[in-house]
Amino acid sequence: MIYKLDLWIREIRIMEKIDHVAIVVTNIKHAVKWYTENRKCKVNYQDNSWAELQFSNIKLALVLPHEHPAHIAFVDNTIKNGTKHRDGSESIYDHDTFGNIIEKVKYEKKNKKRR
Amino acid sequence: MIYKLDLWIREIRIMEKIDHVAIVVTNIKHAVKWYTENRKCKVNYQDNSWAELQFSNIKLALVLPHEHPAHIAFVDNTIKNGTKHRDGSESIYDHDTFGNIIEKVKYEKKNKKRR
Repeated sequence: MIYKLDLWIREIRIMEKIDHVAIVVTNIKHAVKWYTENRKCKVNYQDNSWAELQFSNIKLALVLPHEHPAHIAFVDNTIKNGTKHRDGSESIYDHDTFGNIIEKVKYEKKNKKRR
Repeated sequence: MIYKLDLWIREIRIMEKIDHVAIVVTNIKHAVKWYTENRKCKVNYQDNSWAELQFSNIKLALVLPHEHPAHIAFVDNTIKNGTKHRDGSESIYDHDTFGNIIEKVKYEKKNKKRR
């Protein structure tokens, strides 16, 4: 049992975390209303240009089509010279070999909150 | 501190879990190769028609365009009469108010593994 737990902890350690997934909507206010009414989540942040919903294991970002593409953001502390955000996080947009957009994001140690 | 921890546990409890995110690729073998070489994850399952990658907090499914759309799957134990899968899980495809595909998935209590 302890051996299994130890193995599980090791596996978790070597796996990366997906920081957030972003999907495109055309009205942030309506989208936040839909998601909070239809799924159990918490609103971390919301303005007219984007919103961040908190689920128990991951964040779901709602973005506008002319601002961001749909993407998956991986925590990656190795990135350098990325775009700096107001909360001290830094990110780089990239894509996989099939054109799916991925973001690599690094958070400052002291402030892991939103951008 | 204890109060904060208690509050955090309560918040986690009322929030849903996102079970997996699925993205479309055109070759499962190449996509698994790309993701395992470029991101730290574990291959839970792989055949020619789909694959499931395990990250520390969520699963990433790789699907073919003629089999599944890109989607986000929420754990939802309230669904009824969904499609039954081989592992005993059950799911319903739906969409949000902006056309993003969502899946609601319920796992059997004893077998929470893949389909």
